[in-house]
Amino acid sequence: MNDVEGHTSSGTKRSTQPLPQLEQVEMKGMLEWLSAYGADAQGGVTRLLYDQAWCEAQHALAAKMQEKGLAPEFDQSGNLYGTLHGRGMGSEVGKGMEEAPIVTGSHIDTVVHGGKYDGAYGVVAGVLALEYLKKNFGVPKRTLQVVSLCEEEGSRFPFAYWGSRSITGVSGLEEVQYLKDQEGITFAQAIHDAGFGPDSSYRTASQTYGAFIELHIEQGQVLERLGHSIGIVSNIAGQKRFSITVSGVANHAGTTPMAWRKDALAGAAEMITAVRNIALEAGEPLVATVGRITADPGVGNVVASRAEFSLDIRHIRQESIDGCWHNMLQEFSRIAAEQQLGLNWEEHLSVIPIPMNEQITSDIRDICEVEQLSYMHLPSGAGHDSQIFQPACPTAMIFVPSQDGISHNPLEYTAEEDLMKGFRVLVQLLYKYGYGS
Amino acid sequence: MNDVEGHTSSGTKRSTQPLPQLEQVEMKGMLEWLSAYGADAQGGVTRLLYDQAWCEAQHALAAKMQEKGLAPEFDQSGNLYGTLHGRGMGSEVGKGMEEAPIVTGSHIDTVVHGGKYDGAYGVVAGVLALEYLKKNFGVPKRTLQVVSLCEEEGSRFPFAYWGSRSITGVSGLEEVQYLKDQEGITFAQAIHDAGFGPDSSYRTASQTYGAFIELHIEQGQVLERLGHSIGIVSNIAGQKRFSITVSGVANHAGTTPMAWRKDALAGAAEMITAVRNIALEAGEPLVATVGRITADPGVGNVVASRAEFSLDIRHIRQESIDGCWHNMLQEFSRIAAEQQLGLNWEEHLSVIPIPMNEQITSDIRDICEVEQLSYMHLPSGAGHDSQIFQPACPTAMIFVPSQDGISHNPLEYTAEEDLMKGFRVLVQLLYKYGYGS
Repeated sequence: MNDVEGHTSSGTKRSTQPLPQLEQVEMKGMLEWLSAYGADAQGGVTRLLYDQAWCEAQHALAAKMQEKGLAPEFDQSGNLYGTLHGRGMGSEVGKGMEEAPIVTGSHIDTVVHGGKYDGAYGVVAGVLALEYLKKNFGVPKRTLQVVSLCEEEGSRFPFAYWGSRSITGVSGLEEVQYLKDQEGITFAQAIHDAGFGPDSSYRTASQTYGAFIELHIEQGQVLERLGHSIGIVSNIAGQKRFSITVSGVANHAGTTPMAWRKDALAGAAEMITAVRNIALEAGEPLVATVGRITADPGVGNVVASRAEFSLDIRHIRQESIDGCWHNMLQEFSRIAAEQQLGLNWEEHLSVIPIPMNEQITSDIRDICEVEQLSYMHLPSGAGHDSQIFQPACPTAMIFVPSQDGISHNPLEYTAEEDLMKGFRVLVQLLYKYGYGS
Repeated sequence: MNDVEGHTSSGTKRSTQPLPQLEQVEMKGMLEWLSAYGADAQGGVTRLLYDQAWCEAQHALAAKMQEKGLAPEFDQSGNLYGTLHGRGMGSEVGKGMEEAPIVTGSHIDTVVHGGKYDGAYGVVAGVLALEYLKKNFGVPKRTLQVVSLCEEEGSRFPFAYWGSRSITGVSGLEEVQYLKDQEGITFAQAIHDAGFGPDSSYRTASQTYGAFIELHIEQGQVLERLGHSIGIVSNIAGQKRFSITVSGVANHAGTTPMAWRKDALAGAAEMITAVRNIALEAGEPLVATVGRITADPGVGNVVASRAEFSLDIRHIRQESIDGCWHNMLQEFSRIAAEQQLGLNWEEHLSVIPIPMNEQITSDIRDICEVEQLSYMHLPSGAGHDSQIFQPACPTAMIFVPSQDGISHNPLEYTAEEDLMKGFRVLVQLLYKYGYGS
């Protein structure tokens, strides 16, 4: 990792708030409780936007917020807010938006057969943090809020980040209403059936935030391998996704001399090798992945007439993504010309890199130093709600280690000790912004 | 092509039999007639072993043979013979088997949605050749026979060359009876339902032949590209088929640095490139093909944990096949070790190369010279019934051009002029062996 720095904190910089009885917070218990909604027999969780398990989980969370004294409220998208009202005094964060709440949270939805931590950790930690702060420090100066975002994964409809997009006003129902899920149900029907949408009694989703802070599992192996407890996200990587199609001519594997072939799969194979070599040469944090390939007709004794493969390129700098794609396309063209093959490509997705807010990031680093938590700055190669929030308000992300880097899988796991270290950082940060001068 | 020779015949070597009214032979008409059995709307033909279209075609052919005075007869496998009985005087071919018939023919079955020429051409040409010889030259000295072999393609049951294997005694019903087709019907049931098998009144399939001569479309582009009318097959290539499995670790495409990946698809891609390079370097007539590939989980944003691909290697010399496979496996192992991937392979098929009979091959060449037909010697990269016959009796193959090399496809086509040139060679050869001294 050449653009991240690791630190074993010296623990002497300045004081943070003493946090009494933090170890009594029921982090693991509440995560287990939430994971029962949409649980399957293999230990996985499936909660898709507006489906039954999702509805039950989101309403159960609302009841839990109520119970904990965090005035729960839904919006028309189905985002759920728990609020700890302040006395109207602003902290320094989000200048000019001193009246707007400081918000933490993450998403409640999962991928199909996902794990218990992705998204859920940030939601549960936010609820527990506000409960803890209220119990130990009373009414804050500035309003603190936890949000259980309705959707991030894009698992049910072909649209991701619906929760954060609707809150920040980037997208509205008019953009998604005709989308259909795999069973042919429209987005508009699904939101209505779940009791949300413009016909419901809830307020519109769009809202002004003072800051957004997301606590999340890393979903990678960097923290674990390098032995750090806290990851301070420097940037959320941008990405481009393509589908590359190589065209040749189907021919008999026995009767066509090698020199006369136009073998689409042989061409694709050389291109995939080029992807890896160009990415390795570009160096970290650039990653490029070919995860999917098909060959037609796909028979062992017929030269392939067509091969199609996916390409996913990510980096924290747009010019690096563009430069890498340029190099790959040049190499693809050279290979296609050399092997007399056709080449077509289609861009499916383009997300620009998003740097996290410097002030909050710096505050998180200070907390790690004082709390003597081993931390590092690192980019996030995965996409997160924070990339949607950052253009609208100061945003930062805190990562905790993922065991073996496994995510989107029932085996997703983070040790309770690590969950609590991330929680400690979140509580200190919210204390600073909610109760500090 | 470095191991074939092309010739524009000088036409002066020695005389062949004048063939009166050869142009009146209804080659195209009879091919069209046969293609109606199993025809589909797209111009393709599907006749699978013992299915209805196959039964109708084989019985219609028997009636046609009867009509043409070629005493038709089935055996228990469903192979159909049309015989032009001779006067019991042997020709030189097949020494020690002078009483055994000189046989020509090919297979009646097709691939699913195949063409009108593959197999059918050799059967139809054989019937027409014997009819023509009988009509123009009367009773031969030595018995001539045409065979419509029941099966070659392996399209219904996972077993190819059943016709020639049962005739030559290489395989019997005990070897195939429990095989099932895609609908779960056993081979034993299918042969019984078609009216054949050990309970039928037909004779057993096993028979002694004096020689076997197969006229067939090339199914490749060599003759067309090099401008020759007749291909004299020197060898039928041997082949080995493998399935190669590469194992890595599934990981998030965004959060896993390039250097930490164990990307099964990246490894497979480099191996496929190695296959092409090693084959090109080995030179003709070696061909190696990867036509099929799958990657798991096969998602664009997940590093592949597993990739599996097919490998088909063919050459006319066994040591070249073995040497090439050795080099590929060495390269696969190197790549797997370098990328920290697992490697497994399984051999599915191994067929040894079969050289065609020198005397018959030489006689075919002489006929081309005298008839002033442009010809070349070439290996067959595709498998044929002739490779099963050759170990049992002197065997040779004559190829005619395939337009664009297309076969196993409704677009399979050979111009009538080319069909007739191949027919002319067959007739001269059968005249020589049946009527010559």
